[in-house]
Amino acid sequence: MPKISNKGNSMPESPIRKLVPFAEDAKKKGVKVFHLNIGQPDIKTPEVALNSVINNNLNIVAYARSEGSEEYREKLVKYYNSKNIDVSANDIVVTTGGSEALLFTIGSITDFGDEIIIPEPFYANYNGFSTANDVTIKPVISTIENGFALPDISKFEKQITNRTKAIIICNPGNPTGYLYTKDEIEKLAKLALKHDLFLIADEVYREFVYDGLTHHSVMNENGLENHAILIDSVSKRYSMCGARIGCVVSKNKELIATVLKYAQARLSPPTFALIASEAALDTPQSYFDDVIEEYVERRDTLIKELNKIESIKVSKPKGAFYLIAELPVDDADHFAQWMLESFNLNNETIMVAPASGFYSTKGSGKNQIRIAYVLNKESLIRAVEILKIALNIYKNK
Amino acid sequence: MPKISNKGNSMPESPIRKLVPFAEDAKKKGVKVFHLNIGQPDIKTPEVALNSVINNNLNIVAYARSEGSEEYREKLVKYYNSKNIDVSANDIVVTTGGSEALLFTIGSITDFGDEIIIPEPFYANYNGFSTANDVTIKPVISTIENGFALPDISKFEKQITNRTKAIIICNPGNPTGYLYTKDEIEKLAKLALKHDLFLIADEVYREFVYDGLTHHSVMNENGLENHAILIDSVSKRYSMCGARIGCVVSKNKELIATVLKYAQARLSPPTFALIASEAALDTPQSYFDDVIEEYVERRDTLIKELNKIESIKVSKPKGAFYLIAELPVDDADHFAQWMLESFNLNNETIMVAPASGFYSTKGSGKNQIRIAYVLNKESLIRAVEILKIALNIYKNK
Repeated sequence: MPKISNKGNSMPESPIRKLVPFAEDAKKKGVKVFHLNIGQPDIKTPEVALNSVINNNLNIVAYARSEGSEEYREKLVKYYNSKNIDVSANDIVVTTGGSEALLFTIGSITDFGDEIIIPEPFYANYNGFSTANDVTIKPVISTIENGFALPDISKFEKQITNRTKAIIICNPGNPTGYLYTKDEIEKLAKLALKHDLFLIADEVYREFVYDGLTHHSVMNENGLENHAILIDSVSKRYSMCGARIGCVVSKNKELIATVLKYAQARLSPPTFALIASEAALDTPQSYFDDVIEEYVERRDTLIKELNKIESIKVSKPKGAFYLIAELPVDDADHFAQWMLESFNLNNETIMVAPASGFYSTKGSGKNQIRIAYVLNKESLIRAVEILKIALNIYKNK
Repeated sequence: MPKISNKGNSMPESPIRKLVPFAEDAKKKGVKVFHLNIGQPDIKTPEVALNSVINNNLNIVAYARSEGSEEYREKLVKYYNSKNIDVSANDIVVTTGGSEALLFTIGSITDFGDEIIIPEPFYANYNGFSTANDVTIKPVISTIENGFALPDISKFEKQITNRTKAIIICNPGNPTGYLYTKDEIEKLAKLALKHDLFLIADEVYREFVYDGLTHHSVMNENGLENHAILIDSVSKRYSMCGARIGCVVSKNKELIATVLKYAQARLSPPTFALIASEAALDTPQSYFDDVIEEYVERRDTLIKELNKIESIKVSKPKGAFYLIAELPVDDADHFAQWMLESFNLNNETIMVAPASGFYSTKGSGKNQIRIAYVLNKESLIRAVEILKIALNIYKNK
């Protein structure tokens, strides 16, 4: 029988995926499962985007331009300009989601055995895109005690070798919800310049910034033009994760030309989703105001409720819609599975993402979970109630 | 300035892409360009698929399952069964186009430096997917004299090393239009079994088979269950290239599990396109009958007209909608560019794909072009008229 490759065997499983069969079994037994495990918001997609697809008048669903149409990229330029990011249409390659943007970017700048530094905990699929490109992730650990702030820059410097090609950050962060300060971005920029590394910022949660704070993009750094790469996506911004439209943005012309070659090989981003994404750029500000208000209320509710649980540690996110909680358990993987497999409270239980999957350093985050606050307040209150009782029973069993 | 990787630099450009600026310049000068260069059919997408998107009632454009919904895969099973391909939903991973199906499949079965054997001329983007996976293509040349039939199996055997992981065929073929016979598929199957290689068949043109011939899939080969991998796509079948839905099909459970890990890393295929693709499976047979009739007429018209040109050699395709023509020129790349840059006939010219880009062996196919017969008969007649006169002027200049 022909064999899967070593690389294929090394492709990581999603940290949530192994829990899915247990959640399905629970549902089959009639148990309601509150999904705190996924980044799929329950927020409605903007009308203007939905309507654009309903009103489309295509007769032939033809290939789009590999890099996205001139019109869409010009409209993206206006959007970025409104965020004080000064780019032109030629600095943008439209991709099939942020996922493809990351896959192509890493492919464009690394060779077999190269290394990328990422502060952990980090978005688990960075593992997949790195493995697919035969790249090793060198983690720099951030801690819940510091609210997952940027680790000391010397810790990054220690990880740099002659194989290091880039630093990747997610800002605001999945799974931490941490928003990097201007000062932290500047420190990273200086480091990238000093060692001639790419600084890749996954900024797909740009809009989701709370408490009057402002988002500082890597694209705002003077002198970093050839080093900064912005990864973006419509998925979270417009609650249209299934559209699969993202982009790579950079002023480094070689990088953009190389990403474009990847884009040409796969021919076209999805045409219907491009229609929706172009229309979505006309979403009124009130939509975002409402969504932000909703998320802030959810976050505050969630934290308030979580803090009622004894011995729990919670980091207050300043952006995105995730938080990391440290639980009074030894093995959050086992606890999460147990909640689905062996526990319910009046036929209700919860599904969370064990945080170990977001760490690259073995053994880290073993007692942590990621909670996505993508449910309404009532559901969040009930979910934390379930969590609290589950922890009690689990501890004493 | 940070550098693009060797791999990034090695990513090939589309063989057509370098001609695009010349085509754009011609259009700016008011010259009408007949596009014989692309695989974008002018055939209408089935109503049932278009309507499904117009009538969609999504409120949230959410992630789809990474492998595609149970419902869609079950419907695909029925489609495959109707083609005498015996598979189950668990043998299918839905992908973002055939492109992603190929990228993930090659990634799943190869490591850095492995090799894949492909009869040439072949679909140029196999180069991109191989380069992205650090894989070397070992070509086996097929010739216009033999109508691009399968080269002698001993020529494949000569290319096999301990790094060979797979053979890829496109059936019916882009760019040749060649349809492999049952006997040829059996020969390849025997070779794959003998050397324990995967046999990957890109069968996206399955429906486009002419002259009463029947398509023989690698999935029909007994005993090849663990070796056969089918790459598929809705792009050409339903003239919806921009949808970006394809799939990997195999009875090899390890292969499917590994492709699924790739699919999970990128989260979801595009949701709107999934709606269209599921609906497209209800396209009535009359649609295909009409399309096939149209393509056969176009092919016959095209060949008849081409044969009026002196010293031209044309291979008659039995499937797909491409053919390779050998021209009385030394350098078809130059000729194709010249037709756009320096020639027009009453303000009309044509764009063709130089065939050199479809060969891996340097210097091969230099005097060949690929013509896609994706235009109506009147346009094809006029386009060949232009080609004939262009050749005359080019020869004598």
